[in-house]
Amino acid sequence: MARDPKYDVLFEPIQIGPKTLKNRFYQVPHCIGAGSEKPGFQAYHRAIKCEGGWGAVCTEYCSIHPESDDTSRVSARIWDDGDVRNLAAMCDRVHHYGALTGIELWYGGPHAPCMESRATPRGPSQIPSDFEINIHPRYMDRDDIRTVHKMYVDAAVRARDAGFDIIYVYGAHAYLPFQFLSPYYNKRTDEYGGSFENRARFWREALEQVREAVGDDCAIASRFAVDHLFGPASIEVGEDGVRFVEYVDHLVDLWDLTVGDIAEWGQNAGPSRFFEENHEKPYTGQIKAGNHTDKPVVGVGRITNPDTMVAIINSGQFDIIGGARPSISDPFLPKKIEEGRLDDIRECIGCNQCISRWEIGGPPMVCTQNATAGEEYRRGWHPEKFSTARNADKGVLVVGAGPAGMECAMVLGKRGMSAVHLVEADKEIGGCINWISQLGHSDGKENLFRGSARGLGEWARVRNYRQIQLEKLKNVEVHTGSRLSASDILEYGAEIVIIATGCRFATDGLNPATHDRIEGADGTLDWQLTPDEVVRGGKQIGQRVLVLENEGYHMGASIAQKLAGEGKDVHLVTQSGDVASYMEYTLEAPMLHRDLHRLGVDIHTYTMLEKIEPGACHAYNVWDPGHKDVLEVDTVVLCTQRLGNDALYHELRADRDRLRSEGIEDVFIIGDAAAPRMIVDSVFDGHRLAREIDSPDPAMPLPFIRERRLWGTASNDDYDGELRAAPDTLPLEALGEEVPA
Amino acid sequence: MARDPKYDVLFEPIQIGPKTLKNRFYQVPHCIGAGSEKPGFQAYHRAIKCEGGWGAVCTEYCSIHPESDDTSRVSARIWDDGDVRNLAAMCDRVHHYGALTGIELWYGGPHAPCMESRATPRGPSQIPSDFEINIHPRYMDRDDIRTVHKMYVDAAVRARDAGFDIIYVYGAHAYLPFQFLSPYYNKRTDEYGGSFENRARFWREALEQVREAVGDDCAIASRFAVDHLFGPASIEVGEDGVRFVEYVDHLVDLWDLTVGDIAEWGQNAGPSRFFEENHEKPYTGQIKAGNHTDKPVVGVGRITNPDTMVAIINSGQFDIIGGARPSISDPFLPKKIEEGRLDDIRECIGCNQCISRWEIGGPPMVCTQNATAGEEYRRGWHPEKFSTARNADKGVLVVGAGPAGMECAMVLGKRGMSAVHLVEADKEIGGCINWISQLGHSDGKENLFRGSARGLGEWARVRNYRQIQLEKLKNVEVHTGSRLSASDILEYGAEIVIIATGCRFATDGLNPATHDRIEGADGTLDWQLTPDEVVRGGKQIGQRVLVLENEGYHMGASIAQKLAGEGKDVHLVTQSGDVASYMEYTLEAPMLHRDLHRLGVDIHTYTMLEKIEPGACHAYNVWDPGHKDVLEVDTVVLCTQRLGNDALYHELRADRDRLRSEGIEDVFIIGDAAAPRMIVDSVFDGHRLAREIDSPDPAMPLPFIRERRLWGTASNDDYDGELRAAPDTLPLEALGEEVPA
Repeated sequence: MARDPKYDVLFEPIQIGPKTLKNRFYQVPHCIGAGSEKPGFQAYHRAIKCEGGWGAVCTEYCSIHPESDDTSRVSARIWDDGDVRNLAAMCDRVHHYGALTGIELWYGGPHAPCMESRATPRGPSQIPSDFEINIHPRYMDRDDIRTVHKMYVDAAVRARDAGFDIIYVYGAHAYLPFQFLSPYYNKRTDEYGGSFENRARFWREALEQVREAVGDDCAIASRFAVDHLFGPASIEVGEDGVRFVEYVDHLVDLWDLTVGDIAEWGQNAGPSRFFEENHEKPYTGQIKAGNHTDKPVVGVGRITNPDTMVAIINSGQFDIIGGARPSISDPFLPKKIEEGRLDDIRECIGCNQCISRWEIGGPPMVCTQNATAGEEYRRGWHPEKFSTARNADKGVLVVGAGPAGMECAMVLGKRGMSAVHLVEADKEIGGCINWISQLGHSDGKENLFRGSARGLGEWARVRNYRQIQLEKLKNVEVHTGSRLSASDILEYGAEIVIIATGCRFATDGLNPATHDRIEGADGTLDWQLTPDEVVRGGKQIGQRVLVLENEGYHMGASIAQKLAGEGKDVHLVTQSGDVASYMEYTLEAPMLHRDLHRLGVDIHTYTMLEKIEPGACHAYNVWDPGHKDVLEVDTVVLCTQRLGNDALYHELRADRDRLRSEGIEDVFIIGDAAAPRMIVDSVFDGHRLAREIDSPDPAMPLPFIRERRLWGTASNDDYDGELRAAPDTLPLEALGEEVPA
Repeated sequence: MARDPKYDVLFEPIQIGPKTLKNRFYQVPHCIGAGSEKPGFQAYHRAIKCEGGWGAVCTEYCSIHPESDDTSRVSARIWDDGDVRNLAAMCDRVHHYGALTGIELWYGGPHAPCMESRATPRGPSQIPSDFEINIHPRYMDRDDIRTVHKMYVDAAVRARDAGFDIIYVYGAHAYLPFQFLSPYYNKRTDEYGGSFENRARFWREALEQVREAVGDDCAIASRFAVDHLFGPASIEVGEDGVRFVEYVDHLVDLWDLTVGDIAEWGQNAGPSRFFEENHEKPYTGQIKAGNHTDKPVVGVGRITNPDTMVAIINSGQFDIIGGARPSISDPFLPKKIEEGRLDDIRECIGCNQCISRWEIGGPPMVCTQNATAGEEYRRGWHPEKFSTARNADKGVLVVGAGPAGMECAMVLGKRGMSAVHLVEADKEIGGCINWISQLGHSDGKENLFRGSARGLGEWARVRNYRQIQLEKLKNVEVHTGSRLSASDILEYGAEIVIIATGCRFATDGLNPATHDRIEGADGTLDWQLTPDEVVRGGKQIGQRVLVLENEGYHMGASIAQKLAGEGKDVHLVTQSGDVASYMEYTLEAPMLHRDLHRLGVDIHTYTMLEKIEPGACHAYNVWDPGHKDVLEVDTVVLCTQRLGNDALYHELRADRDRLRSEGIEDVFIIGDAAAPRMIVDSVFDGHRLAREIDSPDPAMPLPFIRERRLWGTASNDDYDGELRAAPDTLPLEALGEEVPA
């Protein structure tokens, strides 16, 4: 198919300083866990998006010097020649597709804990980070300012040498240039503090110096939070926001606009639970609307809908459609629009699992929708290309059409298996997605800071995308409303059987906090429910509800939100020090806290239940089990842990002779059925098995490439041998006198 | 000097299976942040301890397979030939000193989140981790058990090939073998669950198979928590603890004994705030005392005192003195005992900063006492060897004798500077250590779980060690009771001036939560105190006290502990979701929570103050500033943030001409004076400057070696090219049709 002419505008080229962006699709800087230390990961992940039509891709934030070191989180770095070499691999590969590369030069100030370099970060004023724990910066005098400006320039020159087309002086997310600009950070009384011009001076000089150094060769960009969302205490779009754009507009070739800061950057990377598509428009949209800039503007907002994109361009909101999460979820989004394959777009669900791994620090990025994200290099997976399986002549039966089963059947279909049958007991495919996407609440009435409670409706895209793909695959049959027994499976006629039967919640209180059941916990009673029962209905829910949450992700909090949103009096009890700890990593936590607070949910942290009785739950403090409390409630929701539905798998595997005699060569188990986990992991598990269904032992994942130094290979090209002896050039004999006989 | 004969017993050789340990000093497995990915760091850090006399050193926990992947934390790994190559570098270097190397083979089960490998960990029963968030393991059937046993054997063979002498089947800290042994984890009903023999079967078989595979070449060890500290719900030393030792004693050559688990492993790596030296004796001491083993036993307990060591050996508690933290704090501990230099021993203070970096995940280890820990390879620093500075003819004035100033002066002295003057305004050197070491409380009356409240007295070792060293250095003069002004310094006669004047607490409420002062905060009032004033006395403290804690480390909690321990009614208020977040990383948090709970401290999380009035503090919830509360108190302690005492530095630097005319070549600022931080960082900062005082620009740290892959060097020797095309061998042209013109 050809593209719909209404989308033509998205494919117009745009001039960015000395560079031409071939279309309006632009992957803004975002983290992936590669940095400069895993050059293959970095190069392949970015380049696959260019293969998929993105006109430009950027690195994640890229440290300009060891004194802006974000370890344990993974940033890119352009500290030395080794980094130039490693990042050049990305540039080379991206340029192959005719796309541009951007690099986001970053100095974090107090937000950079420097746990690898052990350096001392500098800042405009000595106030500790509101993002890190106990990191006080060093006050920058004028010498320090000159020193840091030179770091920007040196980094920019290295970036140009690596082959980057667009060089950012990064000031969004409350990093150093913004810290100077904002009176929230900047309490100085010299010529770098006080008036707008004084506060803008550091950033302006950085732009001037970087432009002077590399502006003929590269486009100069700046990422700027037009509103800190702190009101008059900091930058507001209608005040210093537009003023700053106008003030330095002549120094930039591209504006990359955001809102908020790093301490609550979920206001920027808004989770779908609280923010809708293009949610930053009220702020970032003001810059072009008010004619405050003559330069192209790119912005974001989890924009996955091509019609939204066109409206954004035609309304003059932005010139360029920025994407981070949408580009992870579908690297081929532009190409699918271009080829008129809109129903093939794999839309971001806004769960922020990608972000969670950066927040945790260290692990590679993951994506619920795109299991190949982060696997392009190390496992050689391509999001849109699938090799024909070597055992494609086999028939496969996939039992259970939840996230793992749907993904596995889809990929097996794309790998050309002769026949794939996906058999689901329920009336519809989707598994847990079908009820989880109804979670949270969506009163839409009351604002929470900037977003509103929207619920998890967008998570249904996990089902919808796969449903459409499965319908297109001629070698895949989907059967619903059919619950298969072991003997049904044995007689089905498939050579390969894959069990994807999902999981269930424990109904006896078994939990990770005590590794035991809870006295009185009994899901067969009509006043005790599991989370799925709350959504599916069937049991009466009283006015006073206690939700016991022991998992640490969103489930207990989502149930509490939903029930409190419906007017119930809710106690939320957890053994942890905070509710829903993992939601800190997905950036949902601040908004969740506001919503729970607004809804009057009574939160009991460091608390467990020892007994559940009709009308009363007996609780205790985990630091002092003798400290007890009785909570009077009508209904109890048990979100203690889950259990894989693995009985079918074990039953089948128990009789190897029968399997053989029925022609079944192998039986696998995937997803929650094997081990309950987050949806992102179940999808991956199903994808992984399908990608490796023709390996010698498909149950065991193939090794992946680990990008690491191997002893004996160079690691010290950045090492100044004159200043310090390079230790690994010393022979053992040179170590001293203690050589054993 | 020669060693005191009473210590001779510590230097006797011990047979461990087929290997001979040359003395009784044994570095048990502990994390450093190197793993198998930073081979230089791993090799040099371990080997320097062998140069210092340790008879054996081990790796940290070492994963046997990608499905036991602890990312974001850093473990060693022995998954493939690349890991063999990298860990062999450690073995080679250690063997050079005649010491033995041990490797701790690890499979974590549900405690391994597998965020890099994305594999599914297996466990004996399907209960989520009580250490990780929401990690459910896959239930192990008999095939799974065989598979995992084979992983142990394959890893053991690789370990032998790498050159390891001692191979552990690691079961302490509640990892997989212990999970099978303990009914807390193991709810199985087959031959691997239920009776003691059934629960011990997995571990026994693992030991048998590893011994069969490598037992002729290597010693087989096991690390075992003799008591889980959970009472009858799990392993108790008097029951299954001794029973297990007896049951598999014939299969091991060495027992490495601990207590507790990973979820609260501060019970093992006990912080000095709550645990004294050799605190595990009541548990681990029972094994030899009851004659339950015929094999040598090693154990730990922050043992730094040579007399304690002798008592441990002579009493029959252990055969071998294990050390983790003491070996980090002083790699030359054995040698110093041997040479009769006991006063040179740099004793561990039990602050657990080393551990904090593992807990955070990713950063290299740090040590408050030993600034060279983790820097042996990447910066080439040796803990006991100091090169003569190229500018040793210069005289240096160090102003301020806190942690940074003491360390800097000491290292400058050891580097042979012609004259170093360390001038302190107070009557004694030590700086903040002098009052911080009086913090916490030490009622000693009541047990908290297993330890007791002891206070921070051992932290005074930071001062004591340096004081002794400074006294020995003939080129260093220490002057106390002398507060220098800028003009005093200008006229002092030193060519190099180093400002180390420490920091002070904000007295106006300036804080990281609001970046602003607090109305009514005023440290000049007699009812508002800073933390140091609480310790130093002078201001009356009322019965009702509010401690405002915004830093996130221990200070606010320590003050609350101290005052509540003295009988005050204490409110502890913080903007964070938990008190003293960083103390989670130092393993102090669980005991702290118990102590605060016991003392009745009223904790207000997610709370800030908007106004302080006599008798009343006006608080609000950070998620809903409209939600207010009034706390009636007599005294307020402001632990909001600190400010570096940098005025002297800026005053001196303002007049360059005067500096020149006085012959002052350079002025530096170090430690809290530059940026307030944790003691570990201040010591490092002082050390770093002294190590690099003769570099071209001593204010700017020299680059360090970054061990990373450089693009183009091998990274895929573990890659099976037959199963999947190796992506980085593909030329760009092979990528497809989209080659731009």
